[in-house]
Amino acid sequence: MGKKVGVILSGCGVFDGTEIQEAVLTLLFLDRAGAQVVCAAPDIDQLHVLNHMSNEEMNEQRNVLIESARITRGDIVDLKSLKVDHIDALILPGGFGAAKNLSDFALKGPEATVLPELKSILRAVHDAGKPIGALCIAPAAVAKALNDFSPAVTIGDEMGTAAAIETMGASHHQCKVDEIHIDTRNRIVTTPAYMLGPGIKDVAIGIEKLVDQVLALTD
Amino acid sequence: MGKKVGVILSGCGVFDGTEIQEAVLTLLFLDRAGAQVVCAAPDIDQLHVLNHMSNEEMNEQRNVLIESARITRGDIVDLKSLKVDHIDALILPGGFGAAKNLSDFALKGPEATVLPELKSILRAVHDAGKPIGALCIAPAAVAKALNDFSPAVTIGDEMGTAAAIETMGASHHQCKVDEIHIDTRNRIVTTPAYMLGPGIKDVAIGIEKLVDQVLALTD
Repeated sequence: MGKKVGVILSGCGVFDGTEIQEAVLTLLFLDRAGAQVVCAAPDIDQLHVLNHMSNEEMNEQRNVLIESARITRGDIVDLKSLKVDHIDALILPGGFGAAKNLSDFALKGPEATVLPELKSILRAVHDAGKPIGALCIAPAAVAKALNDFSPAVTIGDEMGTAAAIETMGASHHQCKVDEIHIDTRNRIVTTPAYMLGPGIKDVAIGIEKLVDQVLALTD
Repeated sequence: MGKKVGVILSGCGVFDGTEIQEAVLTLLFLDRAGAQVVCAAPDIDQLHVLNHMSNEEMNEQRNVLIESARITRGDIVDLKSLKVDHIDALILPGGFGAAKNLSDFALKGPEATVLPELKSILRAVHDAGKPIGALCIAPAAVAKALNDFSPAVTIGDEMGTAAAIETMGASHHQCKVDEIHIDTRNRIVTTPAYMLGPGIKDVAIGIEKLVDQVLALTD
């Protein structure tokens, strides 16, 4: 039997939800590696809805769980129902949803709070010694939820964001898009993905390495 | 310089728009092959909006172009502005959007009509001897738009859909998910993708073959 990996989504679209390409690449590499995937997202309203062409706010309200289900073809559960005993590892793709819906890092920086159901599963997975992978801006939410363990992460090379992460009690390590950072002590693996880009073939390299490393840490 | 390939989207989500995983895999394999991509979608309302968990209709209206932009991180043009001289080939990922927004095949079967701006670019690309790729249910729209040329396509092995495609004047060829069908005379390449599934690693095999074959036919 393959390892069982939880993948936490935050909507459907880079500017107000999950970065779609990062999520799909994560699912591809997990499936190729023989892992079973259980996708989960919180049953909450999105912070807002952005037109992805104009970047302007739309006068709409959308639900994070329902929109996330678009990426997974309907196969997804409420994040509150995801329990640490169900999974061997956890991966968070990026997109602004990680900083707007799963946490409020986009609004509050180092003063951010993490959604209680996400904080709960992150701490339970960490406590159980199971690995956590995070892409793009999602490491900021992981760093905040686990800041008392001084996690080490990368979000690429954006110095303002890196400084905010260090203010929260984590350490930041510069990485290129085709690289991963491994916090061996905390079993946290991170890669910059679309924090750096520039394109899908580039982010795919780092994401494939992250998936392989997360699975290796489940052994 | 790499080949320039138009990728036509039909929304964002398998049940009322583009099949997201098929679209992202198409973009991945095109980028890896060194192709330049120009994504396009029609500036029209979706037929409807479906909750992808319950499959129930939601009381909302969404625009196909604006929703498609979620997949492409905003980098997309109105289908009406896509001209045959701009591209070396055209690829249509699947999802019900191809049968609900780009055509009304989901409602009318063989009596379907194809969105005028899609029919126009498909016929111009065909007339220019440039290749067309189509995934999943999208071959039905291609078959209808080009039915006077007796195109040969696959949508897998779903006999009702295959019969409807043959009624429109095309021929249908059964394929497995990791296979492609090549209509050499019309330069049309098709693969079943999520008409068959079962999973992302499986559809990725056929989609990679399709992308490579479409690019080979541009030479």
